[in-house]
Amino acid sequence: MNFKTIEVKDKKLILLDQTVLPGKTVYNSYEDFRDVITAIKRLEVRGAPAIGIAAAYALALAVEIRADYDLNGLKKIMVDVAREIKDARPTAVNLAWAIDRCLAKSYQYEGESVDEYRTIFWNEADAIHAEDIEMCDAMGRFGAELIPDGSTVLTHCNAGALATGGIGTALAVFYKAAEMGKNIKVFADETRPLLQGARLTCWELMQAGIDVTLLTDNMAGYAMAQGKIDAVITGADRITQNGDVANKIGTYAVAVLAEKHNIPFYVAAPESTFDKELETGDDIIIEEREPDEVTNGFGIPTAPAGVKVFSPAFDITPHNLVTAYITDSGIRPGGRTK
Amino acid sequence: MNFKTIEVKDKKLILLDQTVLPGKTVYNSYEDFRDVITAIKRLEVRGAPAIGIAAAYALALAVEIRADYDLNGLKKIMVDVAREIKDARPTAVNLAWAIDRCLAKSYQYEGESVDEYRTIFWNEADAIHAEDIEMCDAMGRFGAELIPDGSTVLTHCNAGALATGGIGTALAVFYKAAEMGKNIKVFADETRPLLQGARLTCWELMQAGIDVTLLTDNMAGYAMAQGKIDAVITGADRITQNGDVANKIGTYAVAVLAEKHNIPFYVAAPESTFDKELETGDDIIIEEREPDEVTNGFGIPTAPAGVKVFSPAFDITPHNLVTAYITDSGIRPGGRTK
Repeated sequence: MNFKTIEVKDKKLILLDQTVLPGKTVYNSYEDFRDVITAIKRLEVRGAPAIGIAAAYALALAVEIRADYDLNGLKKIMVDVAREIKDARPTAVNLAWAIDRCLAKSYQYEGESVDEYRTIFWNEADAIHAEDIEMCDAMGRFGAELIPDGSTVLTHCNAGALATGGIGTALAVFYKAAEMGKNIKVFADETRPLLQGARLTCWELMQAGIDVTLLTDNMAGYAMAQGKIDAVITGADRITQNGDVANKIGTYAVAVLAEKHNIPFYVAAPESTFDKELETGDDIIIEEREPDEVTNGFGIPTAPAGVKVFSPAFDITPHNLVTAYITDSGIRPGGRTK
Repeated sequence: MNFKTIEVKDKKLILLDQTVLPGKTVYNSYEDFRDVITAIKRLEVRGAPAIGIAAAYALALAVEIRADYDLNGLKKIMVDVAREIKDARPTAVNLAWAIDRCLAKSYQYEGESVDEYRTIFWNEADAIHAEDIEMCDAMGRFGAELIPDGSTVLTHCNAGALATGGIGTALAVFYKAAEMGKNIKVFADETRPLLQGARLTCWELMQAGIDVTLLTDNMAGYAMAQGKIDAVITGADRITQNGDVANKIGTYAVAVLAEKHNIPFYVAAPESTFDKELETGDDIIIEEREPDEVTNGFGIPTAPAGVKVFSPAFDITPHNLVTAYITDSGIRPGGRTK
């Protein structure tokens, strides 16, 4: 990778500003955790794993900035700071998870050194980051074995290095396949309404020198009918116990089309994405987004004022449309039988 | 309809400027056929039937404007004028057909009156327009019988009053169903890259007071899975002898999704859309559009500069995905068996 989504230098958090991609490559450097909260809110950093890592570092920055606090004062204030950071995006599961993990670690500290206390947060954030890098690498290695040399693979949305601390989930497969010397081509759905495929997936694959072709979401079916697609790999926001997959809107349609054309449909996600609380996709509540993203997504109106809009943020792909799950602990078979 | 796509008043051709919809409703009035050619080229008027009608009137305007020509002079000049108009959009089948029909009629004139000669062109253009209105009405009547009261119907692109001289092909069904007192709701795919669904279909259905909901193309599959869609109706650019349908890109994916969910998939098109020369969809050459429509479709770049783009203008829906064809002479069964 010739870019870094998240990096720490001299106790500063450096984020690649994804709101201005692909037009500009801007890195912002943060010393105040409140600015990181703002950055998370305005989607400068996005993708569940990347948000979790940025949040963990925000916590470390918060301890660091309070040079004049004694240990007890610091311990007290961190509870509020943690809540403040969690509120940046209340529905982001990884954010709360990362914050809770760092706090829990700090509660175990029984020493009396402010410096040692501070180091706990930096180390825990580094650990979360390092583990994410390792998970991405593992998914990439396992997934790359599934993709024959010379394949063209369709992906949807952005499940890449820009969404994680490492080389991504779905896109990790392409990076590892390329490393293994395989010649892989990627077709990227633009992914309306927010165009993460066009803006982010195309950008990061081009940065990595991987052959990528952009198409609008409604072209994927015809590309399959023409024999242009050998496999589909997407990420996942959440996977229920029976294997149903919640992911970016449009994933379900791609899975149906893949089945119709006998093209394998793979979901790449770390084990942590498998939700132990939810039995099936029916248990997942689908968030509806603001009409503006569809009607004014590009700064100009593209539909009549006041038109009604149906805009679910994600959809559910039933397990029987999934050929296999590519996880950090290996390949799990899916429920698709043909 | 409280708007007119094409109208003639005092020997002037009045076109609704579709390039500024849905933001503005602007009617342009033309006396010079060359300005109509420009209007056709810049897509002020679009949709195969509407282009054919506008072209026929352009021919009439061309005879009218030459007040100082004698009959022989007029007859000679009209051959060049016809060629000039045909060149406005060389691939538009209806354009050439309408021009040839008007010319053929004029060749039959054996009188010596310039005024009578001029009237031939006006009358033939009026006849083409009137026939189109009648065809649309017929499709609407036949199609409306297929749609139960209380249905929600998905449509793709714009096969409406804005694309024809009448009330459209696919959308005619909704207008006629509403006239019959049926309570019909419409879901309109936005139809990337050029957003004819968002810009035009939503606009004209709202003008007519029909309940319309906009969604991005990748949401249609999930809307079906949620049981929100009872039927699909699209138009067609061309239908081959075996019933394969060439239509706006994305139609094929919608047809596959409709089959998956046991939702009927109807194609509304006049008999003239059935191509007697072509056996199957394999015989149709798919035009690829400029990358800019995908990467800069909203006036700002939405993808990295230089990204490769796959952008077929239309796709082929095989006859075995079509439940029935709604034509101006009645309902023809399609090849879908379930």
